[in-house]
Amino acid sequence: MTTATTARTAEIRAAALELFTRLGYEATTMADIGAAVGVRGPSLYKHVASKQDLLVQIMTGTMDALLDAHRAAVATTSDPVERLRRAVDAHVRYHARHRMEAFVGTREIRSLVEPHRTAVLARRADYEAGFRSLITDGVDAGRFTVASPRLASYAILDLGMGVAVWFREDGEHSENAVAWQYTEFALRLLGAAT
Amino acid sequence: MTTATTARTAEIRAAALELFTRLGYEATTMADIGAAVGVRGPSLYKHVASKQDLLVQIMTGTMDALLDAHRAAVATTSDPVERLRRAVDAHVRYHARHRMEAFVGTREIRSLVEPHRTAVLARRADYEAGFRSLITDGVDAGRFTVASPRLASYAILDLGMGVAVWFREDGEHSENAVAWQYTEFALRLLGAAT
Repeated sequence: MTTATTARTAEIRAAALELFTRLGYEATTMADIGAAVGVRGPSLYKHVASKQDLLVQIMTGTMDALLDAHRAAVATTSDPVERLRRAVDAHVRYHARHRMEAFVGTREIRSLVEPHRTAVLARRADYEAGFRSLITDGVDAGRFTVASPRLASYAILDLGMGVAVWFREDGEHSENAVAWQYTEFALRLLGAAT
Repeated sequence: MTTATTARTAEIRAAALELFTRLGYEATTMADIGAAVGVRGPSLYKHVASKQDLLVQIMTGTMDALLDAHRAAVATTSDPVERLRRAVDAHVRYHARHRMEAFVGTREIRSLVEPHRTAVLARRADYEAGFRSLITDGVDAGRFTVASPRLASYAILDLGMGVAVWFREDGEHSENAVAWQYTEFALRLLGAAT
């Protein structure tokens, strides 16, 4: 694949993301996507196999980016509280920066056909399990106090996904302010002894 | 309006909610809604003015129900910590019980036409302001410690909205368990001195 083709593919994916966010997957047509990037009919299929393929690329790409960010965050320290803090920081910042991906990721799970739906759900389960494992490590080390590590992991993930809904780059709170405050919320929620 | 008409209207609204959740507002047609309740063409318009009207009824109904539940929760005590606890309890339980309303409420704001969009956003702002006011009262009374009551109110609202995404009635955690745990998370997040 040439560089020009790759750039065009990225452009098509970005247009699909914007349209899936605005209209929803069902209501978006390949013709809409083609029109958004100025590519007509059959030419579009040189770059992408189908609308479903675009959704798969967007949703697996989102989960892979989150999993990579999580792994990078927890690799930088062995302290359970600090690992959790960095994982939440990465989670919140990703959602502040990728609001459309988060929106489509939540809304369009049911639009994925198999085996992609199962594959994306497996990545989401891995991501949740990563947080749960950090929480359990902290509980075992006497640093966190929670009745249910699973509910605590859900709560922390929900905090980040909420940021994707309301965060605006030109809003009252900067990304840093939100990341710092939300990591503190997460640690408090876990009853962290810092 | 006769009782039979009212029942039919409620049935149409329930079918619209299910279709908006599954297909999205844009992709749902009045014919789909009619087919779901066994009413054809013009007869449907005896019960409902338009697809937009159904969306407006669903979204304003959701916000009015949340606002009513919030007012009822805070009316039952004057203690700031207990008021917050009861408001979070009402918020979490509503979202556990009305997952489709929460999903459509988040996803379809942009599908509302004016003046309905502004009216629904105003109700959402009122609801958020209610939580913010409870938090500020608690801070003023020396019972909560938070840098930003607004970010704390966003975080608490996001916790409840997250419940609507993952909660299942037949899941591992009962509604009670989730409500108890999440109210504790909210109080911890606020640095509550109980």
